[in-house]
Amino acid sequence: MHFFSDNATPICPQVMAAIAGADHADHGYDGDAWSARLDGAFSDLFETPVKAQWIATGTAANSIALACLCPPYGGVICHEEAHIVVDECGAPGFYTHGASLMALPGVGAKLLPDIVKARLKAIRPDVHQVPARAISITNATEYGMVYTPDEVAALGEIAKVHGLGFHMDGARFANAVAHLGCAPADVTWRAGINILSFGCVKNGGMVGEALLFFGPEREARAAEAARWRKRAGHLFSKGRYLAAQILAMVEDGLWLDNARAANGAAQALADAAAGRLMHPVEANELFVWLTPAEAATLRAQGFDFYDWGEGAARLVTNWSQDAQSVAPLAAAIRALGHHDA
Amino acid sequence: MHFFSDNATPICPQVMAAIAGADHADHGYDGDAWSARLDGAFSDLFETPVKAQWIATGTAANSIALACLCPPYGGVICHEEAHIVVDECGAPGFYTHGASLMALPGVGAKLLPDIVKARLKAIRPDVHQVPARAISITNATEYGMVYTPDEVAALGEIAKVHGLGFHMDGARFANAVAHLGCAPADVTWRAGINILSFGCVKNGGMVGEALLFFGPEREARAAEAARWRKRAGHLFSKGRYLAAQILAMVEDGLWLDNARAANGAAQALADAAAGRLMHPVEANELFVWLTPAEAATLRAQGFDFYDWGEGAARLVTNWSQDAQSVAPLAAAIRALGHHDA
Amino acid sequence: MHFFSDNATPICPQVMAAIAGADHADHGYDGDAWSARLDGAFSDLFETPVKAQWIATGTAANSIALACLCPPYGGVICHEEAHIVVDECGAPGFYTHGASLMALPGVGAKLLPDIVKARLKAIRPDVHQVPARAISITNATEYGMVYTPDEVAALGEIAKVHGLGFHMDGARFANAVAHLGCAPADVTWRAGINILSFGCVKNGGMVGEALLFFGPEREARAAEAARWRKRAGHLFSKGRYLAAQILAMVEDGLWLDNARAANGAAQALADAAAGRLMHPVEANELFVWLTPAEAATLRAQGFDFYDWGEGAARLVTNWSQDAQSVAPLAAAIRALGHHDA
Amino acid sequence: MHFFSDNATPICPQVMAAIAGADHADHGYDGDAWSARLDGAFSDLFETPVKAQWIATGTAANSIALACLCPPYGGVICHEEAHIVVDECGAPGFYTHGASLMALPGVGAKLLPDIVKARLKAIRPDVHQVPARAISITNATEYGMVYTPDEVAALGEIAKVHGLGFHMDGARFANAVAHLGCAPADVTWRAGINILSFGCVKNGGMVGEALLFFGPEREARAAEAARWRKRAGHLFSKGRYLAAQILAMVEDGLWLDNARAANGAAQALADAAAGRLMHPVEANELFVWLTPAEAATLRAQGFDFYDWGEGAARLVTNWSQDAQSVAPLAAAIRALGHHDA
Repeated sequence: MHFFSDNATPICPQVMAAIAGADHADHGYDGDAWSARLDGAFSDLFETPVKAQWIATGTAANSIALACLCPPYGGVICHEEAHIVVDECGAPGFYTHGASLMALPGVGAKLLPDIVKARLKAIRPDVHQVPARAISITNATEYGMVYTPDEVAALGEIAKVHGLGFHMDGARFANAVAHLGCAPADVTWRAGINILSFGCVKNGGMVGEALLFFGPEREARAAEAARWRKRAGHLFSKGRYLAAQILAMVEDGLWLDNARAANGAAQALADAAAGRLMHPVEANELFVWLTPAEAATLRAQGFDFYDWGEGAARLVTNWSQDAQSVAPLAAAIRALGHHDA
Repeated sequence: MHFFSDNATPICPQVMAAIAGADHADHGYDGDAWSARLDGAFSDLFETPVKAQWIATGTAANSIALACLCPPYGGVICHEEAHIVVDECGAPGFYTHGASLMALPGVGAKLLPDIVKARLKAIRPDVHQVPARAISITNATEYGMVYTPDEVAALGEIAKVHGLGFHMDGARFANAVAHLGCAPADVTWRAGINILSFGCVKNGGMVGEALLFFGPEREARAAEAARWRKRAGHLFSKGRYLAAQILAMVEDGLWLDNARAANGAAQALADAAAGRLMHPVEANELFVWLTPAEAATLRAQGFDFYDWGEGAARLVTNWSQDAQSVAPLAAAIRALGHHDA
Repeated sequence: MHFFSDNATPICPQVMAAIAGADHADHGYDGDAWSARLDGAFSDLFETPVKAQWIATGTAANSIALACLCPPYGGVICHEEAHIVVDECGAPGFYTHGASLMALPGVGAKLLPDIVKARLKAIRPDVHQVPARAISITNATEYGMVYTPDEVAALGEIAKVHGLGFHMDGARFANAVAHLGCAPADVTWRAGINILSFGCVKNGGMVGEALLFFGPEREARAAEAARWRKRAGHLFSKGRYLAAQILAMVEDGLWLDNARAANGAAQALADAAAGRLMHPVEANELFVWLTPAEAATLRAQGFDFYDWGEGAARLVTNWSQDAQSVAPLAAAIRALGHHDA
Repeated sequence: MHFFSDNATPICPQVMAAIAGADHADHGYDGDAWSARLDGAFSDLFETPVKAQWIATGTAANSIALACLCPPYGGVICHEEAHIVVDECGAPGFYTHGASLMALPGVGAKLLPDIVKARLKAIRPDVHQVPARAISITNATEYGMVYTPDEVAALGEIAKVHGLGFHMDGARFANAVAHLGCAPADVTWRAGINILSFGCVKNGGMVGEALLFFGPEREARAAEAARWRKRAGHLFSKGRYLAAQILAMVEDGLWLDNARAANGAAQALADAAAGRLMHPVEANELFVWLTPAEAATLRAQGFDFYDWGEGAARLVTNWSQDAQSVAPLAAAIRALGHHDA
């Protein structure tokens, strides 16, 4: 049983069915009937008018979002362990034409308002220094922790006061919302988010995330994003197959069902790994202390996962699992006994 | 029956089966078993060692190819009606960081060696002028014409003499090879091509083209292209679904079968439209003179297609058609009678 | 006596005196007393509120102007022989992050309204095609011809109707105004120009052109240009030496005096070269038919200039000359007799 | 007496004389006799073949250097308080097309080998992470400290082992060498430096720094830099006036004389400010603890300088000063008595 990554998992059946269901002749690019339904589907889900575009990957979604919010000479406040900083090979620099990532520390890959304020205060308002123009956060974070609506709103308030755009990387947004039990709106636009990268692929999709624009500038930003999408070679010839996957996710609640399953599996493992957890487990990722010998013991039983530096491991659960299906690993972790750091 | 675009057509059944067949757990990105087979599959097809990468769209494939061949201060010799000039919203400028497209005229969207030579001769070798660094051609061209191996080789010789990279946009490469009846190698690397955008989507795929690198610099260029692919957000999380489509195309000759079907359909229509053709029909596109009244007559019979300026139309056939299936349109065109320009 | 280029000429004495006059301690960058006078000096000269910035070169001035007017996915309508197209090594592509130069033909390097309109009409308003966002013209043109206020206004009207920015490369703006005898305002903002690259170096300066912003968006655009200037390494540490040069040019009419001298010299040569002129001589450049033997004859007498392709030459006069001082060359040209093309 | 910045100081007389001495007709751009002497002058000074180019500003010099060493998807190891990070409005991101600045901590703005090694070790060698491609240091540093030849060589060894380019920002290189008393070669190419931004403006010049290329790749990199210089609008029309200034600096030792004067002045102030120094004074900058009341006392006596956060100030000496001329400020600082932090 693998716990490498939610990317390693097959597509969920409803998404596969949606792809087959879109296999008809229609107009190319995003001129088809499926793409036309995206705005409505997300407006319903978020209880506000939304402009929505399919986009191939989270990296592209994040980068286009930042390009809409930050000029080339500007900076994006973000966490130093954010995906946009460490795992996108500089994609935000490519799309923004060289904007700076202003990377800040914080436990569990979460930005703290006080640290953000201090960073903003340190910027001289002259042409020599890069002005901050946006804040980007990831929810759930890269360490599997979840920002609450209040936490997002506190950052949103800073963004508002300083005239900054506010972006959320929601590669695991479903897991965050499943954990919070709140309305999607509460942790996004109601808390000040302008653009959300709404992840589908890690949650059971094949290819295609949604880029969502909220608020009064949504039309203008979406129009600009449409240019970036084309210009970056992301306007697929047969976009209906992406749109159909995304609609399958959001129109009947599949996105939350899948996330709840993955979160449940993670909680089951977290219970078993109490005392070994590097971070609280709030979504579908676990970072656990594990000696090389312990890791070997688990692998010998057929459980696979990535090492996380020395003496630790990352385990990711996914939509196809639940508390019951991961019980064998939970038992194997318990059998390791007490962890001596 | 629609003749809008090969993009409007459903996926061919073998490709859909390949997607289903790839629906297993495997490593993310391009670390999977399907992606690993690409180099071999294309090396067999092209009778030479090839480095191959899946890439979402033709626009991305073309742009990454050009970024590998041309520095930001360089220029790309191309046709003024090339897709990279007129239909990619400046994508090559984005990926090359501002390189110039040196657009030249030529009948049927084909570059002529003499015109290329004259353009090269006119460039002063100082720092004030943009130096040419690459040539890019499209085969089959944007007007459905096909470069022969000798024609490609004549341009390849110029590229060699002037130290230029040589790229082929093969969005309809299959249609070109099907028309020529030559080995794929003859019209590519044997004629001097360094990088080929090998199209699949117009030919029955869902998403995913192949970017192919030939010759002694293939390893270095592919390594650089891998960086661009990631940096542009084109490294899909679940690349196996793209690789599987491409393999389904090329491992058993499907790519040529599909192209032959589309070309056959186009020839049947071309025969019917003799006297109305703006360009010889060599692949799967027809550009025909058609008065508004004639167009209306055809549309009234259920045939749909795009206008091409005033008094003309573009018709594109696809893998799901053949001479027999398009016979109704052929008959309808014949019934229009003689065309008075 | 050299006629290579106005760049080859020494600095005029008043500019050298201004440099010496600025040789005092003051704040760095553009925080000095000289830089602070630029807005006022140009507002007076142009009879309207102007935002003015010194900038090292015409290439930088043009590129920053275009970056203020055109997004990366946009296009700039210009002449195919414009300096920005042929002599800036792709600088506009660098500063605009890949915008397209939409190069059009036209006699004497002048854009014609009908050709511009036709080009604009041919652009489909979808995301696949690059939208025009600016027009750029050069006055005096690269062939020494001058747009009249009416001619500029005709293009300005097109810009207004299509929502395009309108830029003038005025590397030889002084020569144009000296020829026209109009107010500087008449041929710029009153005719729709938003940004003017106001040349000084060819007209007797050492280093430093002025970038001028007109109209209601001047503050916002100048603020953005200030970012580009810094970001491109063009915010000199000791800007007062540039500002002083520019002020010396414009505060007492030196710019026009110098241009009149150069134009007068050119006219004297044009009279002598009647029958040999490739273009009407309206500023300080002559393009003359000259056989290799004739060129050799002139060079043997100590006159130097650049060849202009085969059988032709370019002669440029400058601020340090006038009709009288170039009389020897005029006589030598006359002595060549009738030109047989 | 001002201690704002070495930028605030007038030009030194020898440089002004050199400008006047270059005021002759010659070829434009860098085709003149002065520019032609740069390679030789710097090859002599550095005891090795050097390719040298004038360039307007330190920001441009640094950025072009980094663009020659680092691809868009790469990273530059540097100090978190380096000029390229905090005072260039993202210029390196502009010139490198989005490369990442990998900013590291270190006392006195100096990079420490162990911190650099740890950073390099943390980068995974896959396409998801930005690979380091260059190291950039500033000598003297932004806090007026000086890297010794051994310290530079230790970083140079890391660069060599990891295949990284190695750049030195030498805005105050003269002050560093004057402090060290070593050969310029010892602290540059002999210690592994590939490209040096050799500062002149802060040291008495008007406009123009030198960008120096060392080692076997110097020709290729200088050729590429020449393209960037043009493309960025930095190829001045009348380059001889820049070249003449630089030659005046280096051909007769003026650069060191000026730096020794400034350093001497700084030492005199440092002696007076013992107990107040935030950093050792090794070049021409002092960072001193100074209460608002103390600062006011000094300003009331006519000494001007910038605050440096709360309770501190930065004082910069320059070529026109020496120990004797700054004695009044030294006395005034001594008169402040003991500093209570």
